[in-house]
Amino acid sequence: MSEINWNRKDLISIKDLTVPEIQTILDIATSYKELIQRPIKKVPPLRGKTVALLFCEPSTRTRISFELSAKRLSADVISMSSDSSSLTKGESLIDTAKNLESLKIDLIVVRHKFAGAPELLSKKTKAAIINAGDGYHEHPTQALLDMFTIREKKGTLKGLNVTIVGDILHSRVARSNIWGLTKMGANVTVCAPPTMLPKGIENLGVNVSYNLKDAIKNADVINLLRIQFERDSGLLFPSVREYGRLFGLNDDVLKLASPETIIMHPGPINRGIELSSNVADGKQSVILDQVTNGLAVRMSVLYLLIGRGEVQ
Amino acid sequence: MSEINWNRKDLISIKDLTVPEIQTILDIATSYKELIQRPIKKVPPLRGKTVALLFCEPSTRTRISFELSAKRLSADVISMSSDSSSLTKGESLIDTAKNLESLKIDLIVVRHKFAGAPELLSKKTKAAIINAGDGYHEHPTQALLDMFTIREKKGTLKGLNVTIVGDILHSRVARSNIWGLTKMGANVTVCAPPTMLPKGIENLGVNVSYNLKDAIKNADVINLLRIQFERDSGLLFPSVREYGRLFGLNDDVLKLASPETIIMHPGPINRGIELSSNVADGKQSVILDQVTNGLAVRMSVLYLLIGRGEVQ
Amino acid sequence: MSEINWNRKDLISIKDLTVPEIQTILDIATSYKELIQRPIKKVPPLRGKTVALLFCEPSTRTRISFELSAKRLSADVISMSSDSSSLTKGESLIDTAKNLESLKIDLIVVRHKFAGAPELLSKKTKAAIINAGDGYHEHPTQALLDMFTIREKKGTLKGLNVTIVGDILHSRVARSNIWGLTKMGANVTVCAPPTMLPKGIENLGVNVSYNLKDAIKNADVINLLRIQFERDSGLLFPSVREYGRLFGLNDDVLKLASPETIIMHPGPINRGIELSSNVADGKQSVILDQVTNGLAVRMSVLYLLIGRGEVQ
Repeated sequence: MSEINWNRKDLISIKDLTVPEIQTILDIATSYKELIQRPIKKVPPLRGKTVALLFCEPSTRTRISFELSAKRLSADVISMSSDSSSLTKGESLIDTAKNLESLKIDLIVVRHKFAGAPELLSKKTKAAIINAGDGYHEHPTQALLDMFTIREKKGTLKGLNVTIVGDILHSRVARSNIWGLTKMGANVTVCAPPTMLPKGIENLGVNVSYNLKDAIKNADVINLLRIQFERDSGLLFPSVREYGRLFGLNDDVLKLASPETIIMHPGPINRGIELSSNVADGKQSVILDQVTNGLAVRMSVLYLLIGRGEVQ
Repeated sequence: MSEINWNRKDLISIKDLTVPEIQTILDIATSYKELIQRPIKKVPPLRGKTVALLFCEPSTRTRISFELSAKRLSADVISMSSDSSSLTKGESLIDTAKNLESLKIDLIVVRHKFAGAPELLSKKTKAAIINAGDGYHEHPTQALLDMFTIREKKGTLKGLNVTIVGDILHSRVARSNIWGLTKMGANVTVCAPPTMLPKGIENLGVNVSYNLKDAIKNADVINLLRIQFERDSGLLFPSVREYGRLFGLNDDVLKLASPETIIMHPGPINRGIELSSNVADGKQSVILDQVTNGLAVRMSVLYLLIGRGEVQ
Repeated sequence: MSEINWNRKDLISIKDLTVPEIQTILDIATSYKELIQRPIKKVPPLRGKTVALLFCEPSTRTRISFELSAKRLSADVISMSSDSSSLTKGESLIDTAKNLESLKIDLIVVRHKFAGAPELLSKKTKAAIINAGDGYHEHPTQALLDMFTIREKKGTLKGLNVTIVGDILHSRVARSNIWGLTKMGANVTVCAPPTMLPKGIENLGVNVSYNLKDAIKNADVINLLRIQFERDSGLLFPSVREYGRLFGLNDDVLKLASPETIIMHPGPINRGIELSSNVADGKQSVILDQVTNGLAVRMSVLYLLIGRGEVQ
């Protein structure tokens, strides 16, 4: 890798990143994607480094993706969930981070219900910080793996039509995707019932649609957000069945788009709500590719932040 | 190891295995048994491989045995229990397995309350599957470690009299042992109150006894099943004390058997119920040997399934 | 390391240790302290060894410190907490330990609510045992890291004035510190309301004070104990606010001591109770050094117990 565009200590948000930085992450991820297809998937750049997973919201999927990414780079990994963590009990998040720094943790992957928590940590500790989702703010590695997947399938991001469907209001995945995709030159449309759209969303440079059929007609990519029953999505719509009827993607609706259109979802999917089983398991779905690509992208970010030896 | 009789992707049941396959597992386990006695217990065959422990029923003992076996073969291990696993929440077991496959997990060790769940997974994913207990169906590695222990102590399985005592009806351990032992030429007697015996158990080629004293007289091996209060054993007998009085093994009863008879139990033992403390800790008990042998047998299975490089 | 004063299988208590043994631990910890400042923090002495963390009381901080220490020495680590551990359910602690021994675990780090539990284990199993806190008895690695920190900052322990403030009655940290510090020649004063002092504490060779201002005047070291709401501290005082007013250390009170006096706390700190935020984050505080030194000391103990190859 000739020249590497990376001088950051942390990965907090997509909004912060420059286009060359995003390209660097995706390029390095391409070589890790190749690596993880091999029978022997382990490489040494993080040997002797320690990664802490500090998940203050429930998560298995993202946590395991980071855990595997770090272990395949030969890091040691320790995991703290909020319920088991007396580190966080009776002490502030900053005290927890200061303690992790004193334990000579090199990097902290943090998920937190408060927007801004990872940024606060990044300022208060010398350890590198990766934001693995903060409130309704950002989830940068999800957007990066989504962009990686689109680039892998379509060759480019520039000029593509990407439609994001679902509860935009409560979605950090949507927010990170919008920042990243518009930056990379894609045309983004968000599609949702009005209650699920934040006011002034147009100011982010996206088109707005309230009708799924309209919104997918010219889409190269359809990214379906998860209806998150555990958050407040449920309050925004009369019923899940009603949501599925109007905004769920099934074979009939999908026919309105091109057969080349790819279907994405950050997972775990609710079959029969955001999409039908036929669509989820169909030829246009790249949902399981996204899971694999999450590893490649997270390995890339871990490498850039703490795997390049004494390089600054 | 000259020729290895193994072409399976998965280990789902003892019923499926051929006699040469069982012998192969036990033979390779013999060399791993030697290895784990050494001060340095780590060997490289699973380096760069990833093993996922997907335990959808509570378990510490079996989970730790698999975790240690995999780590001593240099695998990376990730652990998901059902309560912590949002991977399994809101998505089907098959979706979870497909996701693990996409995360490039090489092998999934699965425990599930439904009989047949591991077989279903084995058909739906390219990852290797080990059944670590499914409902009342099978628990093949337990039977393999039991057979290993008998062979180690008695030199052979052929022609031996093995008496299995306890709640046969609800025991996957019993079922796997019966398939394996009869296949290897042992004479199996099951001993329990009638309520704890499935109808037609004789059709599996075993003798049936309702009397412990009769059942152990000529036994070379007595295998005592755990009374599992957390399942339905309790409903099958007036009281635990009554069960212990009639089917518990103490010094007095044990005198009726040969001093060469060995006492087995899959653990954890309930002292004073299935057996007295004297018997558990006595010279004839091989219960702790079983724990060690569990490591050797699981290392053998892991090696056969994913540790032999590009061999098919 | 020329000659090593160490012939013990276990680390159960500070009371047991000789002065040369304590010095050996602290000396080896000094070289590990240097190691963990480096970018690559991993060394091989425990490669192929297995460490089990058996925490039968909630703990994140101590558990993670041991986990990191063991991993940086290249050990494999398995973790069992009491709530997840069916190993301990339905079987005695001794049966659990016997099982861990049969799993060829080399060392068990045990935290238990009953004083004496680690000593019992040490007698019943061949595995090495480290006491990570037993009831109100001892927490030897905490005292060792405290002594290491004092020696690091002050050059010696001999002749220093150390004041320990707080709920001495319920504190295993205090007990281990008192044994260690007096043994190493320090002058120890305990300071607390009478309800928080055990009867006959003077017999341990310490001074007793009921007044914080008096107790810190000539102190070289002030060690503030955590008010443990989860134990019985709360019953010993009218209110937390009242405790903080009389025994909490703030800037005003601290002025009565020398500016060279160092402030210690085993963590996690309760800001505004045992000490003010200004004091916690001030120049005299060595609280985060203690966290780092915990790693160095635990690596030293792990090395001494199971990392020296075939040496006895």
